[in-house]
Amino acid sequence: MKKIVVDLLNNDGGEEALIEASLKFAFENKDYFLYLVGHEELIKKINTKKVGNIQIFNSTNLIHIESSPREVLRQESSMLEAFNVLKNEDADAIISSGDSGAFTSLSFFKIERLHPEIKPAFMPVMATVNEGQKMLLLDAGANLDVTSETLINWAKIATLYYKLLIENKEKITVGLLNIGSEDYKGSLLNQETNKNFKISKNNFIYEGFLEPDDAIKGKVDIVVTNGISGNIFLKTMESSFLNVLKLLKGIFYKNLKNKFAALLLKKDLKKFKERYDYRNTGGAYIAGLNKVVVKAHGSSDSLAFYSALQQVKNAIEKNLTEVLKKEIEAWND
Amino acid sequence: MKKIVVDLLNNDGGEEALIEASLKFAFENKDYFLYLVGHEELIKKINTKKVGNIQIFNSTNLIHIESSPREVLRQESSMLEAFNVLKNEDADAIISSGDSGAFTSLSFFKIERLHPEIKPAFMPVMATVNEGQKMLLLDAGANLDVTSETLINWAKIATLYYKLLIENKEKITVGLLNIGSEDYKGSLLNQETNKNFKISKNNFIYEGFLEPDDAIKGKVDIVVTNGISGNIFLKTMESSFLNVLKLLKGIFYKNLKNKFAALLLKKDLKKFKERYDYRNTGGAYIAGLNKVVVKAHGSSDSLAFYSALQQVKNAIEKNLTEVLKKEIEAWND
Repeated sequence: MKKIVVDLLNNDGGEEALIEASLKFAFENKDYFLYLVGHEELIKKINTKKVGNIQIFNSTNLIHIESSPREVLRQESSMLEAFNVLKNEDADAIISSGDSGAFTSLSFFKIERLHPEIKPAFMPVMATVNEGQKMLLLDAGANLDVTSETLINWAKIATLYYKLLIENKEKITVGLLNIGSEDYKGSLLNQETNKNFKISKNNFIYEGFLEPDDAIKGKVDIVVTNGISGNIFLKTMESSFLNVLKLLKGIFYKNLKNKFAALLLKKDLKKFKERYDYRNTGGAYIAGLNKVVVKAHGSSDSLAFYSALQQVKNAIEKNLTEVLKKEIEAWND
Repeated sequence: MKKIVVDLLNNDGGEEALIEASLKFAFENKDYFLYLVGHEELIKKINTKKVGNIQIFNSTNLIHIESSPREVLRQESSMLEAFNVLKNEDADAIISSGDSGAFTSLSFFKIERLHPEIKPAFMPVMATVNEGQKMLLLDAGANLDVTSETLINWAKIATLYYKLLIENKEKITVGLLNIGSEDYKGSLLNQETNKNFKISKNNFIYEGFLEPDDAIKGKVDIVVTNGISGNIFLKTMESSFLNVLKLLKGIFYKNLKNKFAALLLKKDLKKFKERYDYRNTGGAYIAGLNKVVVKAHGSSDSLAFYSALQQVKNAIEKNLTEVLKKEIEAWND
């Protein structure tokens, strides 16, 4: 029996959508057992099919950080409760759509690392404008200060994630996000890391410095950078795409003529929108930990959360944690 | 007589477009004198109207940096020549569409600062999705390491630029780009700067931390940050907008039905595209120097470069340099 802990609170779009998705997943996957942390009464009410392979942990406190990440350990919350359940029940995975900062902090505090010297990282799966090409970005906001060694270790780990969970290509390519593609450009850290990448023993092809445009065009499979640049890149890209689409919607609804034109384009525009919809790119992994840890999007609807659960399942079926552990041990021999 | 130095080489779109724009500007503004640095024969060939208020400095060497910004001083180039002309002729302004890194480096090396303790910054004018709302971003790539004091000084200087050159609003708003809006988030530098902003004597309204989405939506007039985050933000936003539009173009040309629909939307889409076209947002200022310094877009066509020249003219007419000097002196009294 595979076990997944689900934090149901903290979703911008409400708890119901997550409960529905979780029950649907449990109903369809009888070899899985789900620990649902949230409003007990509400879960029972929605569970009209009497799905049996679940256990409810009643929790009604939303997580809320005011001044420091360590607060997550001091206040009662469904998210903290979920991490306690993960440990006590020795579950395989944990998933939440709550606050990224809180979730990442709790993951770091509560779950063992795969290797003591490798920092965990917040790693979303992102769509690129190169059709079908997905990329992993790390770190997207959890680690603000990093070393050259950390960045190279992340590239190695992300390569395993990519091959195992996204596409088993022979050659995985990695780029280092920078403010220019020339070797002399960027911070001292980036210059040092660029040199070290070129001489280190890698399980990927290092493509050198990468500008945002290269990343957006899907030139590489994995983009590494510190948490500040990664977060700014991720949020700027997400916001730009969403805002352009919103502006276009305004044009399409402007008058009858435009509405008619939009109708003709409807099918293609829908396909386009879906391609860049977070619900179809999946959640973010917290990479480098001894459990499967997935952060679903903060405003997940039922479909988005169900997809994220499938993503968790995929990682469990592929034995992600064991494969990673073995590979990392081999590097350090 | 107002004097502008124009570096004509280093334009991705070719020298001809810049020559045309410069001659048109000189022809229309007889109280201006233009020093044109580029291929003498080509300029003479294009100057069929025999525009008289220009002087040509023949230069045929493109600038090219391989390993360090200081190279710009050691190799012959039209850009270096332009900076020498600026000094020798005591001109008011300099403009180029060449490599940003080289242009910024030469500006820093060759032009006096307005105040010895205030670092110059690369400051583009950007469009936001809030119609009509423009924002200034600094620094967008020239200063990688900054202090809290520098960031606050930049906000003060940019406020003067905004009022003088973009819109003379009573209240100018400033935000500090960060990986979250909560006070505890971000680098130590950002946390320190956030505190200092709140207690410093400002000529603007400080709005606190700003995420990329807030900036893109035009929540503030001025966005301050270090050159790394600023560069990643600027390039990610530019690339995202351009790439979405490119993908849409693909949809519009896909088949006859779509082509017909695109035809109906043509006028509105064109207006939309123009709003986010760099040619209409203008060039970037190098702020904090004793001359008017404008970097036009790297692939300027004739229209874009003509607009950038108008931007230079606007700054000269408004006495930008003198106004800034006086204000900065007053702060330090």
